[in-house]
Amino acid sequence: MAKSSLLIGMHFSGPKLLAALINDSGEVLERREAAISPNTMVQQVATTARELGSRGGDVSALGFGIPGLVNRQTDVVIVSPDLPTGIRENLHKELTEATGLRVEIENDANAAAYGEFKVGAGRGSHNIFYMMIGNGIGGAIILDGKLWTGTSGFAGEVGHITIDTEGMQCVCGNTGCLETVASAPSIVRRARERLHRDSTSSLSRLGLNKDFTADDVAHEAKEGDDFALMMIERTGKYIGTGVASVINLLNIEKIILGGGVMDAGSLILNPIIQEARRRAFQPCFEATQIVAGTLGRDAITVGAAMLARDAA
Amino acid sequence: MAKSSLLIGMHFSGPKLLAALINDSGEVLERREAAISPNTMVQQVATTARELGSRGGDVSALGFGIPGLVNRQTDVVIVSPDLPTGIRENLHKELTEATGLRVEIENDANAAAYGEFKVGAGRGSHNIFYMMIGNGIGGAIILDGKLWTGTSGFAGEVGHITIDTEGMQCVCGNTGCLETVASAPSIVRRARERLHRDSTSSLSRLGLNKDFTADDVAHEAKEGDDFALMMIERTGKYIGTGVASVINLLNIEKIILGGGVMDAGSLILNPIIQEARRRAFQPCFEATQIVAGTLGRDAITVGAAMLARDAA
Repeated sequence: MAKSSLLIGMHFSGPKLLAALINDSGEVLERREAAISPNTMVQQVATTARELGSRGGDVSALGFGIPGLVNRQTDVVIVSPDLPTGIRENLHKELTEATGLRVEIENDANAAAYGEFKVGAGRGSHNIFYMMIGNGIGGAIILDGKLWTGTSGFAGEVGHITIDTEGMQCVCGNTGCLETVASAPSIVRRARERLHRDSTSSLSRLGLNKDFTADDVAHEAKEGDDFALMMIERTGKYIGTGVASVINLLNIEKIILGGGVMDAGSLILNPIIQEARRRAFQPCFEATQIVAGTLGRDAITVGAAMLARDAA
Repeated sequence: MAKSSLLIGMHFSGPKLLAALINDSGEVLERREAAISPNTMVQQVATTARELGSRGGDVSALGFGIPGLVNRQTDVVIVSPDLPTGIRENLHKELTEATGLRVEIENDANAAAYGEFKVGAGRGSHNIFYMMIGNGIGGAIILDGKLWTGTSGFAGEVGHITIDTEGMQCVCGNTGCLETVASAPSIVRRARERLHRDSTSSLSRLGLNKDFTADDVAHEAKEGDDFALMMIERTGKYIGTGVASVINLLNIEKIILGGGVMDAGSLILNPIIQEARRRAFQPCFEATQIVAGTLGRDAITVGAAMLARDAA
């Protein structure tokens, strides 16, 4: 019997590398997670790929999802908060040489979108907008069943549409980006500001923990903490504002929401849908399904692997 | 010698009908303009089409551009500020019967985008975003050389992306839409508010004319009136904010700006480009050309005619 064809998907994100061995149907057979540093990442990736590949089956390709902009024509990583310039420019070449595999590097949100499209919440749809709401807010567009990455590969940056012309400075240089109020770090910032200035919020258990995270806010909201609930709902409203702009611009069949912030489940999905309904053209809103992704933390590794498979 | 194939393009807008006889290369051979009322429009369209068609040549189709959302599957006009429900629903059938021509009804911005793409500022490009800034703000998307109208035909509504979550109420029901600050009527409203409250603006010649229009603001700006110049520049900044969101979302090759507000020329185009540069991701901005349309007031009639031709 012929060995089945396997794929490796990886997700590099700041200090962490997530890696997975994935079969041709997009099922995760094995997962790895490790701390990683930019300077040793090529070797670490090669070692991890070798270990995963030794489990049997022929590994045909490696999909590598990263935060940042990847030029589709040249495979060069143009911008990435977590990678120094020298590493970015040669990453594709070095990963190919070090692993001996066909390598596809892709923006993390593009990879996750493709994963949800192929084997997750987007299966059977043709036109999808994907939003990944975590430490940043990324996005990706699938049109007529294909990843639509724009003229140079950068399309989908929904975290950096302006929703408040007078808003805060964003890391991207713009002001009032969606990301400045709805990413995980901005949830923490807004909650801290509010706890600091508002004595009524002192009843919130969040105030007991100085170093709380966005996950903690979601956790307390699930436990019924009113202040945490309000923070999650407001975040949902901001995301819903961005979703409404996407609906009006793209009249898209389905919007899939993923990333760590969506772990809050219906507590955040409901206000997102409510705000999108309030802000979008009614016939556009009615033509759109807004759903949570189903692949969770596997979305990027699975999607990167599927992209590497289909790019052959 | 065979008679050449001709097309008729029309643009219905509020109280006016613009009509044109157009040859297969998109050249306007003859123009008509008339007052029109929704109740007699079908007869007026038929009469105008007959008159234009009597000039020789075989008219093969009629393209009809209107403000509003057109469902591409059913040809039904879903929403239009200028058309009552009863007329909207049967418009396609009635125009077809009354003119004896093959009829395509299309959203005005979609039509104008197609015109610019085929014979205007977009010739030779593959991926275009078109913005029409006039009494409202419409938009349209051309991807891989085809009008991309979305799941139901409504894509491109850039006038109704939220650029200020706390902004003014818009006619669409949302608040803080781009249209609430950058359309022609909103230029007039902002200028009036400012003239009313600010004594320094009393030096502006606009204050001498109680019933000024957005065209008047552009005219005075061209004449060097500081206040009018400031109003046009601020409008350009708002439009540039929307343009930057489109650039970040779509990483599009070319953005073409048309509609009456663009008659202000470089006085408005320069601040649009400046603000888009300031707000968009640099590599996305650099991959995009931002230009004014070249078809002027003919964009919709020409584009509607070309769409009718190519839909055959």
